[in-house]
Amino acid sequence: MNKDMTKSQQKSTLPNTSLNTPPKDLKGLTATKDSDFSQWYSQLLQKAELIEYSPVSGCYILRPNCYFIWEKVQSFFDALIKKDGVKNAYFPLFIPENLLTKESKHIAGFSPEVAWVTHAGETKLSERLAIRPTSETIMYDTYSKWIRSYKDLPLRLNQWCNVVRWEFKHPMPLLRSREFLWQEGHTVFATKEEAVSEALTILDFYEEVFVKLFAVPVLKGLKSEQEKFAGADATYSVEAVLPNGKAIQGATSHNLGQNFSKAFNINFLDEKQKNQFGWQNSWGISTRSIGVMILMHSDDKGLVLPPKVASMQVVIVPIIFDATKVRVLQEANKLKQKLLAQGISVHLDDREGYTPGWKYNEWEVKGVPIRIELGPKDLEKNQAVIARRDTGEKLFVPLDAVDKKVPTILDQIQENLFSKAEKVLHNSIVKVENSKDAEKELENTKILFVPWCGTASCEEEFKAKTGSKSLNSPLDQPKLNKGQKCFACKNEAHSWFYFGKSY
Amino acid sequence: MNKDMTKSQQKSTLPNTSLNTPPKDLKGLTATKDSDFSQWYSQLLQKAELIEYSPVSGCYILRPNCYFIWEKVQSFFDALIKKDGVKNAYFPLFIPENLLTKESKHIAGFSPEVAWVTHAGETKLSERLAIRPTSETIMYDTYSKWIRSYKDLPLRLNQWCNVVRWEFKHPMPLLRSREFLWQEGHTVFATKEEAVSEALTILDFYEEVFVKLFAVPVLKGLKSEQEKFAGADATYSVEAVLPNGKAIQGATSHNLGQNFSKAFNINFLDEKQKNQFGWQNSWGISTRSIGVMILMHSDDKGLVLPPKVASMQVVIVPIIFDATKVRVLQEANKLKQKLLAQGISVHLDDREGYTPGWKYNEWEVKGVPIRIELGPKDLEKNQAVIARRDTGEKLFVPLDAVDKKVPTILDQIQENLFSKAEKVLHNSIVKVENSKDAEKELENTKILFVPWCGTASCEEEFKAKTGSKSLNSPLDQPKLNKGQKCFACKNEAHSWFYFGKSY
Repeated sequence: MNKDMTKSQQKSTLPNTSLNTPPKDLKGLTATKDSDFSQWYSQLLQKAELIEYSPVSGCYILRPNCYFIWEKVQSFFDALIKKDGVKNAYFPLFIPENLLTKESKHIAGFSPEVAWVTHAGETKLSERLAIRPTSETIMYDTYSKWIRSYKDLPLRLNQWCNVVRWEFKHPMPLLRSREFLWQEGHTVFATKEEAVSEALTILDFYEEVFVKLFAVPVLKGLKSEQEKFAGADATYSVEAVLPNGKAIQGATSHNLGQNFSKAFNINFLDEKQKNQFGWQNSWGISTRSIGVMILMHSDDKGLVLPPKVASMQVVIVPIIFDATKVRVLQEANKLKQKLLAQGISVHLDDREGYTPGWKYNEWEVKGVPIRIELGPKDLEKNQAVIARRDTGEKLFVPLDAVDKKVPTILDQIQENLFSKAEKVLHNSIVKVENSKDAEKELENTKILFVPWCGTASCEEEFKAKTGSKSLNSPLDQPKLNKGQKCFACKNEAHSWFYFGKSY
Repeated sequence: MNKDMTKSQQKSTLPNTSLNTPPKDLKGLTATKDSDFSQWYSQLLQKAELIEYSPVSGCYILRPNCYFIWEKVQSFFDALIKKDGVKNAYFPLFIPENLLTKESKHIAGFSPEVAWVTHAGETKLSERLAIRPTSETIMYDTYSKWIRSYKDLPLRLNQWCNVVRWEFKHPMPLLRSREFLWQEGHTVFATKEEAVSEALTILDFYEEVFVKLFAVPVLKGLKSEQEKFAGADATYSVEAVLPNGKAIQGATSHNLGQNFSKAFNINFLDEKQKNQFGWQNSWGISTRSIGVMILMHSDDKGLVLPPKVASMQVVIVPIIFDATKVRVLQEANKLKQKLLAQGISVHLDDREGYTPGWKYNEWEVKGVPIRIELGPKDLEKNQAVIARRDTGEKLFVPLDAVDKKVPTILDQIQENLFSKAEKVLHNSIVKVENSKDAEKELENTKILFVPWCGTASCEEEFKAKTGSKSLNSPLDQPKLNKGQKCFACKNEAHSWFYFGKSY
C-alpha cells in the first residue's frame, strides 16, 4: 500500500472487489534504474503501457501512451519546418538494388542492415528491392528529374515514415529497433552556404524538440569523421547525457555536400547558364528520441513525463466511502470541468473496486505529472491534495484555488525536469587534456571535453582501450592553446570534442 | 495564350525572358477526360505535380500538392475518431508467415499479393516476413495478450501507416498502387451490437470525409458476400459515382464477427465470469480516396480542388508593367495580407519572366480554386477580377470588397462542386427489375438499382456477361414487393442493391 496515503484513505472500504486481488497485475517496478538498468527499462516500458513486444524480434509495438508522444513530436517539429518553407511528401518504401548502391560510401554503411524483398505472392522479383533504411537514394533519383534550373532551388522536402535497419546488435525498444518511425528531410540548394545554414537551422529545431518538449538539454555539435553519416561531408548532432553518465545521440542533420548530387546527377543551370551540382542536406529525428526522454527523467517508480508530452497531465483520484461518495464525486467532477476548460488534459479515475493506493501506483508508473486526491476529510477542510510526480511533493491547496494552481505547477514540473537534467549534464562534463585523466574520469562515469586531433585511427584506438567514443564538437569552440596536443595520441589537436560512453 | 486575357494583359512586356520559352514545360493537358480518360488522368497527375512515377513499378511518389490533401484527410478523420474514443498506435510493418496464415479466408484473400522479405543483409531469415497488406493478424495476436476481462473492452486502436499489396493488375496512381497510405482501425467489443454500431459510425465518418472535405456524395451500404473483405462477416462501404458513370469504392468498414477472435483466441471473462470471444471490426480509408476526388471534379484544363483541401486556395496574379509595377504589387500585397488575416491560404505570384496567361494556365492545371487578377486598368477602376476555377466565371469586384467576397466564393465553390457531383450521382441511378433493362442501362453508363438475390453465383454470372458487379446495398432499404424476383437470375430477391461498372 502506498506510504503516502492519509489515514482517512486507508480506511476506505471497497465495494464488491477484494483488496487482495486488484483487477490487473500492476505492481510497481521491481528493478531499479541504478542497479539493473536494462531490466528497469524493460519493466517500465511494459508497465507504463508504452511498448509491447511483437512476434518479430527487434520490432516493437508503440502503444497509445507512446504513440501520443510521437504525435507531439510530429506536430511540434512539423510546424517548425513548414514555417521554414519545407513541404511534406511521400516516397516509396522500396528501393531497387541498383539505386541503393549508387553512392559507394552510403551503401557500404547500410548494406549489412538492409531487409530485402525477393518475392511478391508466388513470383520471384526480377530485381530484389530494399526496404528503405533511409531515403536518400530513392528521393535523389527523382530530384535529378525535377531540378533543371536555379529557379527550381531550393528544393526542400520532408517525409514522416517508417524505416528498417536490420541491426544484429542487441535490440532495445525505441533505442535500437529494426523498424522505427522518423521524419527525414532531404533538401537541395544552389550553394554550399545555404545548405550548411539550413543544416544548422534544423539542428536548432531538434534542440527545441529536446529542450522545449522533452525537457532534455543537449550538446549540439559536429560529429567526428568516424561517426558521421555514410555519404555525408559533415554530420551535426544533438546528444543528451543521462543520469548514469552515458551519452545518447538524439537527432542528426547531415550536410551531404555534392556526394549524392554527383552520384545521382542532380545538376542545374545557374544564373550565368553554367551547369552546377546541387548542395544537399538530409536530417532526421526518430522515435528513439522518446527513449532518450524516458531514460532521462524516469525513476524507480516508473515513467516521469514532462507535462508538454503527457497525454494525461492530471489525474483526479476521489477517495470514495459510501456515505460521502456522491458529494466527493460531484466536487471531483466540478474540478475536472474547470481544468478541461483551461485546456488541461485531465482524467477522473472513479473506478470502483480499486483502492486509492492502487490507483496512485498505477498513475505513478504511467508518469502522470499531477495527481489530485480528493476525499471527505479534504472537503471538510475545503481543500484538495496535489501530488507532484517529479518530486513526490504533496501540496494542500484550497479547493477553489486548485484550478488556478494546476497550470503553474505543470510549468514548474516542466522546468524542474529540465533543470535537473541540466545539472546532470553540467556535472557530467569534465575538461581533460591527457589520456590518463581521461581514463580516470571515464571510470567516474564522466563525459570528457578534450582537445582532439580528430583522426579516425586515434578514435578507434581510444575506443578499443576505453569503450568510449567521440560525441560531437561544439559549434562554439573555445580557443585551443598554441601547440595544444591531442588528449589521446599527442599529435596536434584540431578542435575541442566531447567523448564519452554512449548508447 | 489564354483566351480570357484582357487587352491590357496581352500587352504586358516581359523583362529578360522570351515569351516563347517559358521556364518550364507546363502546357495544358492534351488528352481529354471524355475521350482518353487514362491518358488525361496521367497527364493531370503529373502536370498538377500531384504524383511522380518511381523506379518501382506500381509505386508512386506523392508530391507535396498531393500529400497536403492526405494531411487534410488525416487531421479531419483523426479528430473524428479520437473524439469517439479511438486511440492511435503503431504496429510493426512485418508479419511472420505463421501469423498471416492463421485466419484461413483472410490469407486466401491476400496471399497472392504479399511482398515477402527473405533476407536481412547477407543473412537468410529463418522465417520469411510478410510486409503488411493490412494488420489484422499482427494486431490481433497482441490483442489476445491484452484482453482478459470485459473491463479491458472495448479496445479501439487505429494506425496511420503504409501497406503493400503487390497487385498484378494494371496499376494506376492513387487508385491501384502496390504501396499506399491509409489508416486502419482495429477494435474489439464485448457484444455484437456494439461492434455493428461502431462499424456504422465509422462508415458515417467516411461519408463525412467525402461529403465535407472532398465534396463527393456517396452511396453508403453493405457489400455483397462476393465483394466483402477476406475474413469479415460483413463489409460496409461508401461508393462514389464518377461523371463517366463508373462507380468507385471510397472506403470500407468491416464487421469481422468472431472470425479473427476465434483464430487468435481473443477471449475475455464477462461480468458473469463466463468466457466469451470478442466481436471485432476493422476499417480503413486510403490515399485512393484522393484519386476518387480528383476523378470526380477535375476537367480538361486540369485539377479542380474543393477549397477545403486546397493547399493554395487563392492565387493573386498581378499584371505587371514597368510603369505601374510598384503600385500594382503594393496593392496585391495588401490584398494578400488581408486574405491571410482571415486564415485563407493565398499565394502572390509575382514571378517575373512569365506572362499572366502562362501563370493562369499553371494555376488552372494545379486546381487553385480562386485566381485574382490585378492590373493597372483594374486599379484605375478600383477593382479586381476574381476568376473561379470550378465554373470559369469572372467577377469584377470593388477592390475594398475583395477580401470580404473571397470566403463566400470559396464556400460557393465547395457547394457547387458537391451539387454538381450530386447531380451526376442522381442522374446515374436507374431502377431496373430485369436483366434486359439492366444490360441496356449499363450500356447507357448507368448505375443500376436492382432487387437482387445476393448469391455469389448470380453475381459472377452477371459480371461475366456485363463486366459489372455489385456496389453495395443501402442500409435504408425500400420494401421489396411480395415475391419480388432477382433482376438477374429470377430467384427470390433478397434486398435492393446497386450494380454498375466500377474501377
